[in-house]
Amino acid sequence: MATATRQPLPQRLLLGPGPANVHPDIMAALQQPVLGHLDPVFQELLVETAGQLRGLFGTANELTLAVTGTGFSGMESCLANLIEPGDTMLVGVHGFFGMRMAEFAQRFGAQVVEVTAPWGEPLSAADVAAALEQNPDVKLVGVVHGETSTGVRQPIAEIAAAAHAHGALVLMDAVTTLGGLPVQVDEWGVDAAYSASQKCVGTISGLAPLTFSPRARARLAERQAALPTWYHDMEALHQYWSAQGFYHHTCSSTLVYGLKAALDLMDAEGIENRFARHQQCGDALKAGLEAMGLSLVAATGHRLPMLTTVSIPDGAADLDVRQALLAEHGIEIAGGLGPLMGQIWRVGLMGYVAQPANVTTFLDAFAGILTAQGCSVDGNAGRAAAEAALAG
Amino acid sequence: MATATRQPLPQRLLLGPGPANVHPDIMAALQQPVLGHLDPVFQELLVETAGQLRGLFGTANELTLAVTGTGFSGMESCLANLIEPGDTMLVGVHGFFGMRMAEFAQRFGAQVVEVTAPWGEPLSAADVAAALEQNPDVKLVGVVHGETSTGVRQPIAEIAAAAHAHGALVLMDAVTTLGGLPVQVDEWGVDAAYSASQKCVGTISGLAPLTFSPRARARLAERQAALPTWYHDMEALHQYWSAQGFYHHTCSSTLVYGLKAALDLMDAEGIENRFARHQQCGDALKAGLEAMGLSLVAATGHRLPMLTTVSIPDGAADLDVRQALLAEHGIEIAGGLGPLMGQIWRVGLMGYVAQPANVTTFLDAFAGILTAQGCSVDGNAGRAAAEAALAG
Repeated sequence: MATATRQPLPQRLLLGPGPANVHPDIMAALQQPVLGHLDPVFQELLVETAGQLRGLFGTANELTLAVTGTGFSGMESCLANLIEPGDTMLVGVHGFFGMRMAEFAQRFGAQVVEVTAPWGEPLSAADVAAALEQNPDVKLVGVVHGETSTGVRQPIAEIAAAAHAHGALVLMDAVTTLGGLPVQVDEWGVDAAYSASQKCVGTISGLAPLTFSPRARARLAERQAALPTWYHDMEALHQYWSAQGFYHHTCSSTLVYGLKAALDLMDAEGIENRFARHQQCGDALKAGLEAMGLSLVAATGHRLPMLTTVSIPDGAADLDVRQALLAEHGIEIAGGLGPLMGQIWRVGLMGYVAQPANVTTFLDAFAGILTAQGCSVDGNAGRAAAEAALAG
Repeated sequence: MATATRQPLPQRLLLGPGPANVHPDIMAALQQPVLGHLDPVFQELLVETAGQLRGLFGTANELTLAVTGTGFSGMESCLANLIEPGDTMLVGVHGFFGMRMAEFAQRFGAQVVEVTAPWGEPLSAADVAAALEQNPDVKLVGVVHGETSTGVRQPIAEIAAAAHAHGALVLMDAVTTLGGLPVQVDEWGVDAAYSASQKCVGTISGLAPLTFSPRARARLAERQAALPTWYHDMEALHQYWSAQGFYHHTCSSTLVYGLKAALDLMDAEGIENRFARHQQCGDALKAGLEAMGLSLVAATGHRLPMLTTVSIPDGAADLDVRQALLAEHGIEIAGGLGPLMGQIWRVGLMGYVAQPANVTTFLDAFAGILTAQGCSVDGNAGRAAAEAALAG
């Protein structure tokens, strides 16, 4: 093969906001023989995978599946199905992904009411309730469970209750949280939720798991306007991802093998153990960064375990530090998005990557590079604090 | 891993309309280390891959890339970008995929003028020209280069010339043909074309290569209506798939490794050799089927090499035959779509699968099953005719 003569690709430690490194068992699962998208064996696998996704989403929703595309494709799927032109949608905007949700909704013809909070803070359920009172036409409320641009974890249940009291449906972005934090679609009263495969779920990107409640499906059944998409037609997708197995698109068996292996690994680890692992590693990283003398961005008490945001200290140059981490240590972290570009770094510990050794490896490398670039940070204190948190 | 305890998945010979079996070198390429979607090494790979796709599409179009999704996602991308609500689009409908293109276009608000031909025949360029004359508002003409539902190969250049004389743009579906037949976007005057990764391109599904001409991009620049999609926003995708490398979505390095390895394999084989291989295998299959006593569906002189359609003979039951092929020989072929359901079978020889041994293996298995089910076919004559064609 012609590729045999090229340079081997570098092995990175992927500590950005996803993709994360993929567990070797999942990589191995990708090598299983390709099956046709209508093969009865593959269709059984789809039905089984949908069942496991229900467990992960904390839902009994029959319409639970994965669309072929990335997390944004999941966001777009949900909005395209749930919005009719002229509908009013309330979107919680306290970061880049809430902004994107508002922008997508407008592209589908929604009048968008934004409820905002400072980037780094969660939304206030009282603000949402007040906005609903002022906007009686709101039919859909969108919230981001884990705002990957700020590192904030958003409580959902109270906002969902306010939306339901108003007669609105609730759409939740669980791109960053699914597989790393409890997601309780039914308990919280969420009507539609979407995620992505390459973050805490832990396989390669290319699939967006999602779920629609019976209430959300009733909304689809009542649609007056034609659906502005065929690829993301939720009921057609569901007829494919079910025992009926009607042809919709050429779903990749390889991508589903990866997702299924990731879900099997979660079952083998125990989902509570998995959540605890993410929490412990995230706590240790945060303790280390603060002990080093750096400031965290997300408000105390509202921090995501799997994605930590840290302010860029005086004297450090965003790109120089990230490039040095990549070049000298093979470690990828991410910069800020939108107004936080150049202001913060984002460090992920997602899925397979959420391991104690990766926390200390990163802290050592990071402290070394910041010091070399003339920033005054205390690497020893950082490592000690992280080790204490990991031991605790 | 929990999956270790499950039954191994069956190894099929995939002779349907895609996915095809994947070359082992491509499967191996999928194991390369995952890279972040903004990693400079990955971005170089994207730029290089786009260059190879230009060669395959026969175009100098700068906007050439692959969207993360299947072939239908490529179709939807092109239509969403090129259609504004109220636009008139002419669609050539002589099979299922032309029907789908017309349906997608309507979902984006187009007034659709259909030019039809009997399923199994190509469209007539004169019919297209006449319809254009009767419909002066047509802004976009859509045609399917390889109609996978009927096995028909559609000449494009004459239709494109008629469209251009009319001031309309030309959209071409090359889902089935790219990588197996010459596709000459620039020479034929095609303004936008899309394909899929899992047919004659030969990797797993999940990417849809596509290309937009400068004329098509000018249409995008002139759009009045908001684009009804963000995920498929062509100019935003292009800013990602270029040296700028602006974040758009989390493109999977693994999927791109597969596509790149497939393109490298084409370079190594020589594209003309690859086309000849598809032609020879397709010709041998058709010769074998006819010698066996069966009737081909697509009109003589307009048959696709990589997808052969054959009428279901009296006495044979569609599903019984396909299930027996799968159960007894591990061979997948496909049934008909739409009005051809129950009337025809579709046999693919795409990419890695287009090999002489697969032709004779299939013919023997097929003749055996048809005979066992009480159909009178001449298996020996079929094999002899195929072998003669392969030797010729």
